[in-house]
Amino acid sequence: MTAVNGVGELTVEPPQERGDAARNRLRLLDAARTLIAERGTDAVSMDDIAAAAGVGKGTVFRRFGSRAGLMMVLLDEDERAMQQAVLFGPPPLGPEAPPLQRLLAFGRERLRFVDTHRELLSEANRDPDARYNAPFAVMHTHVRVLLDAAGSTGDLAAQADALLALLDADYVTRQLVDGGRTLDTLGAAWESVARKLCGK
Amino acid sequence: MTAVNGVGELTVEPPQERGDAARNRLRLLDAARTLIAERGTDAVSMDDIAAAAGVGKGTVFRRFGSRAGLMMVLLDEDERAMQQAVLFGPPPLGPEAPPLQRLLAFGRERLRFVDTHRELLSEANRDPDARYNAPFAVMHTHVRVLLDAAGSTGDLAAQADALLALLDADYVTRQLVDGGRTLDTLGAAWESVARKLCGK
Repeated sequence: MTAVNGVGELTVEPPQERGDAARNRLRLLDAARTLIAERGTDAVSMDDIAAAAGVGKGTVFRRFGSRAGLMMVLLDEDERAMQQAVLFGPPPLGPEAPPLQRLLAFGRERLRFVDTHRELLSEANRDPDARYNAPFAVMHTHVRVLLDAAGSTGDLAAQADALLALLDADYVTRQLVDGGRTLDTLGAAWESVARKLCGK
Repeated sequence: MTAVNGVGELTVEPPQERGDAARNRLRLLDAARTLIAERGTDAVSMDDIAAAAGVGKGTVFRRFGSRAGLMMVLLDEDERAMQQAVLFGPPPLGPEAPPLQRLLAFGRERLRFVDTHRELLSEANRDPDARYNAPFAVMHTHVRVLLDAAGSTGDLAAQADALLALLDADYVTRQLVDGGRTLDTLGAAWESVARKLCGK
């Protein structure tokens, strides 16, 4: 992903401006992450982010188009970071850990991810095509392969679908908000079902 | 459920009209069921239903308000019929069959139900509160109780959530339309996961 916007603005800018734009972009994303971690997504406005990054509000909109645009960039970057951690990172998420341990770690890690991004993920769920997008397909393969390696048998694709439903943004939100659950008890529930499927 | 409409029209009608209204209502619902079974939901219009029932189109709208209103009545009646069959009907759905057999039969029966009503159920899914409505709670309890009786252990509520995700209208539609699955292979997938959870 580059800082080039929808109309290709940066391709005609002089080098100095390109550097400023990239720096502003990073500064805004860092500010957004810090504020969201402190207050939760709902309590962070574009004004807050601009002020924390020390740039004008116009710059935020020039870089990201809208609040949803900025959130989408954060979601996308975190999605890539998680894929990296799963494929190449250290245990227990990464390939050096035993398959069942990786599977359990994946559930807990994804629950934290969903909690951070649940506003945008729930919005995406309103569109059935967005619900089953490329990241979903990657997760589905990952879970299926781990179920296989951890010794499960039977319809592994259906088992992966059933397990991933416990990480769905609407499901997680409902359990956290109305069901009185925590990320920890949801992680334990995921672990219980995953172990059951692997017979362990 | 009575034939009284939203503005209480029937309470001021003479007995003869009330009888006609009830008869028309039943005739329209029968016609709608027959046409949907023949052609699928998508290919049935209000005009078709009125013509098949031998009443004017105005009567259909007076009785049900809209196409969605008629479909909602069909959904509601089928939902009640399925609840009756599950609670009091003959095996394998009803209480005389062993728990695992009831669980497997429930999955296959619900897949047929979802296939018949998937248009309306998918629409309801756009609203997260409607997704987890009263019928969902009844199904969840039913599946949880059967998992317990069939010998599963661990977090049975999470297992029920995972299993019910395989019967979700959007999931089923996607598997049937884009995934090249059939109600039969989806029934086999449900059976595979259910057996796995029960260790059988």
